[in-house]
Amino acid sequence: MHPERHRFYHPELDLSPEQELEGSEVHHMSKVLRMKVGEDVILLNGKGRLVSAEIKELKKDRGRFRVLDDLPSWDMPSGLHIAMAPTKNMDRMEWFLEKAVEMGLGRFSLIGTQRSERNKVRMDRLERIAVSAMKQSLRTYLPRLESMHDYKPFITGASESDRFIAHCYEGDKSTEISVGGSTLILIGPEGDFTEEEVREAKEMGFHALGLGAARLRTETAALKAVALYNRL
Amino acid sequence: MHPERHRFYHPELDLSPEQELEGSEVHHMSKVLRMKVGEDVILLNGKGRLVSAEIKELKKDRGRFRVLDDLPSWDMPSGLHIAMAPTKNMDRMEWFLEKAVEMGLGRFSLIGTQRSERNKVRMDRLERIAVSAMKQSLRTYLPRLESMHDYKPFITGASESDRFIAHCYEGDKSTEISVGGSTLILIGPEGDFTEEEVREAKEMGFHALGLGAARLRTETAALKAVALYNRL
Repeated sequence: MHPERHRFYHPELDLSPEQELEGSEVHHMSKVLRMKVGEDVILLNGKGRLVSAEIKELKKDRGRFRVLDDLPSWDMPSGLHIAMAPTKNMDRMEWFLEKAVEMGLGRFSLIGTQRSERNKVRMDRLERIAVSAMKQSLRTYLPRLESMHDYKPFITGASESDRFIAHCYEGDKSTEISVGGSTLILIGPEGDFTEEEVREAKEMGFHALGLGAARLRTETAALKAVALYNRL
Repeated sequence: MHPERHRFYHPELDLSPEQELEGSEVHHMSKVLRMKVGEDVILLNGKGRLVSAEIKELKKDRGRFRVLDDLPSWDMPSGLHIAMAPTKNMDRMEWFLEKAVEMGLGRFSLIGTQRSERNKVRMDRLERIAVSAMKQSLRTYLPRLESMHDYKPFITGASESDRFIAHCYEGDKSTEISVGGSTLILIGPEGDFTEEEVREAKEMGFHALGLGAARLRTETAALKAVALYNRL
């Protein structure tokens, strides 16, 4: 772990010793942190690779770097996929995503359900939050972010080996999420999934997941699932 | 569970059939929800007792109620005590507390550590958030909220049978929090506990708690601990 040097997200980082980067990450480097040519940074691609590099040229929004070294990463891709009905309040989703990336998340999908309270989500904001949480937590994998899936085709196409639906109706529920497995968890809207949606998921091999007796908000339920998956 | 009727926090609820209540809860009842004399509400005292009651008289900030019935509660007092160095940003603490009350928390203390970034916290705001999360999640126990303990006397006086300190230094760490036990978990500031603070805690019988390899923000670490304690 190299907490000492500043980290910048470079999704197109390749094997060449010379790297270029444009946009908000470089703007942060030059204008907020006021870094200078000759200083060392860490570039990471969100897919497990990170390198140390020297700044060779730095404009307001564009930089050129010489790669010095590949750096080891302790982080691993996560097998956890959370698919959530978007919350009415964007803040709640953003908070969730920040915490989930810190704890460990492989993929995050937004799903349209019959009682969803929103069907447009600013994915650029979510992406920015995920990048920032990845860097802050010293992780090197960025979760895949996907908006907005229709419910039926989404559950029909799901390929994870453990598939759960966290709903609030009575009935037998599993409380055990396997650590490290290939796992998809559906989290419903504030008004819950409809009984029809629950039935459709069960027909596609989803199991009911119990997250305790309290009535949890959407983002709290999702967060508890993420914490339990990452319990070791 | 009685999600259908509105819930109001009445900390002084006693065994008398006539109850009075003043303040912001009644203001919410009369001015926001525009409830009327004759309607039924639920009053709860945050200590596990809840009753249904009829509104007999309702002024802007003051109401009189006739208790109809004691209602059963599924909720149990939680043995979990989180003691946290306050975060610089109040929002992060507030958000943590909301989620923690939903998931289950018995007591929340703020502690002054050598690297704490704040030593004043608006406890009235935290209390309001805890009350709201208790009602929203259909819980009936409100956690005890305490501000601001000095570190050394606090750890010296701790009486929980399982005592953990979640620090980021290397070394053997436990990863297992017992469900339902009498448990205190210390969560450090962004810059971590000092080595001296860790040593002092160990001398008082605290064990190091591991919450994974990622660097978690203060409130994320606290939230993960709460989720793990409430995993069943």
